Amino acid sequence: MGSPLFSEVITEILIRRPPVQFREHFSPGFLLPPPSFSPQWVMLVARVRLSPRPHPAGRQEERRLGDYLLEEEEGVGDHAVVAKCAEIQNAISEGATSFLFTEYQYVGVFMVAFAVLIFLFLGSVEGFSTKGQPCTYTKDKTCKPALFNAIFSTVAFLLGAVTSLFSGFLGMKIATYANARTTLEARKGVGKAFITAFRSGAVMGFLLAANGLLVLYISINLFKLYYGDDWEGLFEAITGYGLGGSSMALFGRVGGGIYTKAADVGADLVGKVERNIPEDDPRNPAVIADNVGDNVGDIAGMGSDLFGSYAESSCAALVVASISSFGINHDFTGMCYPLLISSMGIVVCLVTTLFATDFFEIKAVKEIEPALKKQLIISTALMTLGIALVSWLALPSSFTIFNFGAQKQVKNWELFFCVAIGLWAGLVIGFVTEYYTSNAYSPVQDVADSCRTGAATNVIFGLALGYKSVIIPIFAIALSIFVSFSLAAMYGIAVAALGMLSTIATGLAIDAYGPISDNAGGIAEMAGMSHRIRERTDALDAAGNTTAAIGKGFAIGSAALVSLALFGAFVSRAGIKMVDVLTPKVFIGLIVGAMLPYWFSAMTMKSVGSAALKMVEEVRRQFNTIPGLMEGTAKPDYATCVKISTDASIKEMIPPGALVMLTPLIVGTLFGVETLSGVLAGSLVSGVQIAISASNTGGAWDNAKKYIEAGASEHARTLGPKGSEPHKAAVIGDTIGDPLKDTSGPSLNILIKLMAVESLVFAPFFATHGGLLFRIF
Amino acid sequence: MGSPLFSEVITEILIRRPPVQFREHFSPGFLLPPPSFSPQWVMLVARVRLSPRPHPAGRQEERRLGDYLLEEEEGVGDHAVVAKCAEIQNAISEGATSFLFTEYQYVGVFMVAFAVLIFLFLGSVEGFSTKGQPCTYTKDKTCKPALFNAIFSTVAFLLGAVTSLFSGFLGMKIATYANARTTLEARKGVGKAFITAFRSGAVMGFLLAANGLLVLYISINLFKLYYGDDWEGLFEAITGYGLGGSSMALFGRVGGGIYTKAADVGADLVGKVERNIPEDDPRNPAVIADNVGDNVGDIAGMGSDLFGSYAESSCAALVVASISSFGINHDFTGMCYPLLISSMGIVVCLVTTLFATDFFEIKAVKEIEPALKKQLIISTALMTLGIALVSWLALPSSFTIFNFGAQKQVKNWELFFCVAIGLWAGLVIGFVTEYYTSNAYSPVQDVADSCRTGAATNVIFGLALGYKSVIIPIFAIALSIFVSFSLAAMYGIAVAALGMLSTIATGLAIDAYGPISDNAGGIAEMAGMSHRIRERTDALDAAGNTTAAIGKGFAIGSAALVSLALFGAFVSRAGIKMVDVLTPKVFIGLIVGAMLPYWFSAMTMKSVGSAALKMVEEVRRQFNTIPGLMEGTAKPDYATCVKISTDASIKEMIPPGALVMLTPLIVGTLFGVETLSGVLAGSLVSGVQIAISASNTGGAWDNAKKYIEAGASEHARTLGPKGSEPHKAAVIGDTIGDPLKDTSGPSLNILIKLMAVESLVFAPFFATHGGLLFRIF
Repeated sequence: MGSPLFSEVITEILIRRPPVQFREHFSPGFLLPPPSFSPQWVMLVARVRLSPRPHPAGRQEERRLGDYLLEEEEGVGDHAVVAKCAEIQNAISEGATSFLFTEYQYVGVFMVAFAVLIFLFLGSVEGFSTKGQPCTYTKDKTCKPALFNAIFSTVAFLLGAVTSLFSGFLGMKIATYANARTTLEARKGVGKAFITAFRSGAVMGFLLAANGLLVLYISINLFKLYYGDDWEGLFEAITGYGLGGSSMALFGRVGGGIYTKAADVGADLVGKVERNIPEDDPRNPAVIADNVGDNVGDIAGMGSDLFGSYAESSCAALVVASISSFGINHDFTGMCYPLLISSMGIVVCLVTTLFATDFFEIKAVKEIEPALKKQLIISTALMTLGIALVSWLALPSSFTIFNFGAQKQVKNWELFFCVAIGLWAGLVIGFVTEYYTSNAYSPVQDVADSCRTGAATNVIFGLALGYKSVIIPIFAIALSIFVSFSLAAMYGIAVAALGMLSTIATGLAIDAYGPISDNAGGIAEMAGMSHRIRERTDALDAAGNTTAAIGKGFAIGSAALVSLALFGAFVSRAGIKMVDVLTPKVFIGLIVGAMLPYWFSAMTMKSVGSAALKMVEEVRRQFNTIPGLMEGTAKPDYATCVKISTDASIKEMIPPGALVMLTPLIVGTLFGVETLSGVLAGSLVSGVQIAISASNTGGAWDNAKKYIEAGASEHARTLGPKGSEPHKAAVIGDTIGDPLKDTSGPSLNILIKLMAVESLVFAPFFATHGGLLFRIF
Repeated sequence: MGSPLFSEVITEILIRRPPVQFREHFSPGFLLPPPSFSPQWVMLVARVRLSPRPHPAGRQEERRLGDYLLEEEEGVGDHAVVAKCAEIQNAISEGATSFLFTEYQYVGVFMVAFAVLIFLFLGSVEGFSTKGQPCTYTKDKTCKPALFNAIFSTVAFLLGAVTSLFSGFLGMKIATYANARTTLEARKGVGKAFITAFRSGAVMGFLLAANGLLVLYISINLFKLYYGDDWEGLFEAITGYGLGGSSMALFGRVGGGIYTKAADVGADLVGKVERNIPEDDPRNPAVIADNVGDNVGDIAGMGSDLFGSYAESSCAALVVASISSFGINHDFTGMCYPLLISSMGIVVCLVTTLFATDFFEIKAVKEIEPALKKQLIISTALMTLGIALVSWLALPSSFTIFNFGAQKQVKNWELFFCVAIGLWAGLVIGFVTEYYTSNAYSPVQDVADSCRTGAATNVIFGLALGYKSVIIPIFAIALSIFVSFSLAAMYGIAVAALGMLSTIATGLAIDAYGPISDNAGGIAEMAGMSHRIRERTDALDAAGNTTAAIGKGFAIGSAALVSLALFGAFVSRAGIKMVDVLTPKVFIGLIVGAMLPYWFSAMTMKSVGSAALKMVEEVRRQFNTIPGLMEGTAKPDYATCVKISTDASIKEMIPPGALVMLTPLIVGTLFGVETLSGVLAGSLVSGVQIAISASNTGGAWDNAKKYIEAGASEHARTLGPKGSEPHKAAVIGDTIGDPLKDTSGPSLNILIKLMAVESLVFAPFFATHGGLLFRIF
């Protein structure tokens, strides 16, 4: 906050100078620096995360959390338990780190290979010539040679990829740092545990958002040294950053998703269903793998994923803006409007977070969900003001946007509406998701009730719930597309996506909080802590399932908008004027594209199923052959289970990854840009639906099970307790939901975004050399 | 075959006059009559069905079947069993008849209301004026007034609706006539039972196909009396026939589907899972409702459905052809090419049927599936020749097609390729479906194997299987679309759909055969016949699950082509030149359209779930309150269960029906034709995927269960026997699959076709008065 530039902005706002004068005052080339970049700011965030120095209101908890982890707690006083927690935390952290390093080795090979591919494909556009070429949009100007675009795109790709991996890794580190601490805090009450888990999630959210923005901003400025006033080439090269971020996110989500769900399903099937031992019981050989999985799948995977969304929506907005009047007039402030929106989002989310941790305190279980819901509302309301401010300050009152060949006049307040409608559509999606996945409302209670008649009705009701939950989000997305498109064409859609993602830090905070609580519960169980602690972490976890579903809702909604914006940018760049469904080339693309999410889901679900089968066999083998295991006198062989998950996920992430990465290349090269447009549109409109329904179905099943277990209402008690027939039916539903909500569902939004951004990056190649098959015949 | 016109054609073929001369010889106004219309032909078919007079090769069986049903059978000699079978058959037939009449009362009200709506909407296009108007495509001509188009469209709608209801009713009658006879034949061996079931299916297939064609042909000729040379108006009015057929099919499929699955799921959940009594045990109060359900859902529903597909594809082809050079030059033979293809299909299927019943005999269980597969191959191969013949004889060597404003030259051999590729794509879809749903191949065996680890892995593997099974059919559909569109624009696609449906009679035969065998098994169980008889009917039924899935595959594949053709006709008629995805109006339609199948599935699945819950409660109540029921000394109250299914299906079919019927009206009226185009394209590309995956997943689960029960291989025996843990898991999968494969899945193809044909019928209204919302704002 001490940044001189930021304070100048504040001053400007306070004295309310009209925006035009303000802008003139700072001259066009000036960039309002995203506040999070000021060193002080980064340090403050870093302080919160790593060294738990006293924080004004949270001083007490912070100190206990960090400094005295291994000491005795006031009023609890069981040193052995604390030591046990620390030990388990270490095991989980080591398992997760080791898996991520293994994964990154394989992914690294891919990264290098794909970087070479990008260079070769893009370099070949003008036959690796180093001569300048006429620009695509401003024909009278000369732009940089295609060869250098290829080089910079490759560099941007590598930067995005490395940042994505780093984000995932960092998230995992934070989460494994926080889980045992949450367990220990749970001894003092649900409120304290909530704050610990939530704050850790927040740290992760801020770090990822700020980090992504920082690298992007630095890259743009460095690339500008070469590109100079060729902004068309500059921002086209920058799209490589989005591609890098998203392709790593794909492997992270899929690999991590398979890892976590193979372990989870395997552990549950033998432990809970066959052996009737509690979840996370230390006697279960797959229990460590399960907890490691939460961190590599739900945390590292999700971190990469949301970073990817973020990078792509920024890139989509930038590349569309580069051919608007900002790009042509070299208005760097206007140009950086997307980055300013994101920066404002970080500030807003920081303020919002204080409402959950510092301004109010959670005292009872039933306050958790309202508190999280309040986070969404507050951040959205504040952000609306933030957007208005940024739009007023950074944008000229009117500018022109390139709209598939035509120019479109846009006013600054129109662009404000575009961002705001994306933001509010996100809130609607969040609420609908909450309604369908929280066990406070009738949909999940109906699903729980259907367990009375067994697993089959539970599954039928759960699937129907997921399908139904698609309706309102799709209308919300459709409305934001219509409004933002009408107001500012593809640029409007790109900034609407940014609007939806602008509260990403809060989204990540409430999303990451779920797996942390889940792990905390696991640690409590494994450390042999009392039943009450487990109840508290379970309550946190139940709210976490809902927030995870909300986070996925945001991710999917924004993915739809981002891909559409990227798709629009691709179409512009590929030089096609329209995508007419009634041409055979486009229609076959559309129908095949709509099929791809099914193909992808089939692969990932089958992978989870097969890996889980292997895990089940291993867990059964250990129970049958290790004497004393069930009695708790012998230790299971955790390492073998970790190895099974690791091997399965590494092996199984390759085919779905290849499907997504190769489809645009093959379609573009063989069938050309029209068919590829069809594929992108088809996979977008079909993938969004499966993604939303899969993640909500899974979330609902999980919470229906928790509803029965918690027995908080009379209705719930008639279905329970644990071990009753309805509960067994609910466990089956929960197990089926695992791959839906944590593997195939959330990977689908990467599928649609990634294919779009990849098409955009390779557009010049496809436009020049694509459609081989049609040229031959 | 004695028809003079048909024999003349044969003579023409034999002496191989070139087609042009042949065509001149019969003058343009002449229609080569579909051979099935000749009175002799109809009588022959009728004889086979109703009065089992000796048939050359099947004399023995036929006589026993019909005349001696209630007499003692050779070598079996249990008079009581035969009487019991007849009694059960009567109960089923009465239940089905009574349900259909109840359903038809409600549907009748809708039919009249919707007819009024059609009249009002279409009449209002020119303000109910009785003045002629300039034609849409040939501007210099005067066409009939919109008011009369409205009247004739309404009449065509009513005709289509009544024919559809009649088809469903007829199918049900045939099936309930055949089921007990199949049971009795099963005493003599699997081969005899197969022939009985298959022949009954064939009778149904031929009747529906011939009936549909006959009514359509007569209507065209009667309408022509008024329309004279205004073929544009004539064939536009005729599209009402498709709408009528399809809207009744929707209610038939949804109502029947809910009926059958509520009863089936309800019966299984209590009977098989809780009480551990066999399927179809007479002690189960829901058993009669279950068997009635097979006839009203799988038979009557499917009959209406395939009739609808047929009517729509014919109408789509006709309306596109009416604006081609056929329509402009009044070449009635060329115009009737679609009807000729269908007629040829009936002849080909008749010959094909003989291969299953007369030329070869089934002697062992393992021969059933190959025999059915052979049916597909033979009919496709013969039909290819048939298409070549018809194309050579009926078409001029070159003609022009209207292609969204442009004229396109098409050669007769090009149109042959269009039909043929549709036909062969159907075969590919059939084979792929067989591969994924028959328990002779690894996919279903893998699913069965996953039951080892419980219901959850079974469901995960089953869902993955369904998703995977979409891939090749979609490529097949895409390829046929591309080829037929490239060769002959939308007309090519319409005739490709007809090609796929041309072997409909065989498709219906092998499809209807499944529920008949299912019922036969039920009757055997209820009549207390020996275990061996049940084994034989189960074997037939297992093959029937595969053929039902194949039939659904055909229905879905052809639905995709038909809707695209109808969509194309709609776009032409609505006067829009292109459907550009990159306009906001179209894109929001696309994404909302892709959501509709989910909404629809959510409704239908939830309906089945709720109705099944009610059924479960009633069945449990009866088991708990009727003394002696489990011991078999008291009779259950079948009637209450029948009533529950009836009430539920009538009540629950309204919301999904309303969704499908109202969407085009609301979108077209409020948002206009561009958005409606998007909705049609979106629901088409998304609905096809869910429909295929749902029906294959359900088929695979059912056969995985049967695989374990039959224990025909060593692998299968390690999973069984009935009652083992893997078997219980398989039963859960089967129950979940029921609403997927018999309610929501097969209704989806009606959804996509029906919305398309409805849009086409209302196109003039939308083009004139549509898009209110955009006009206001």
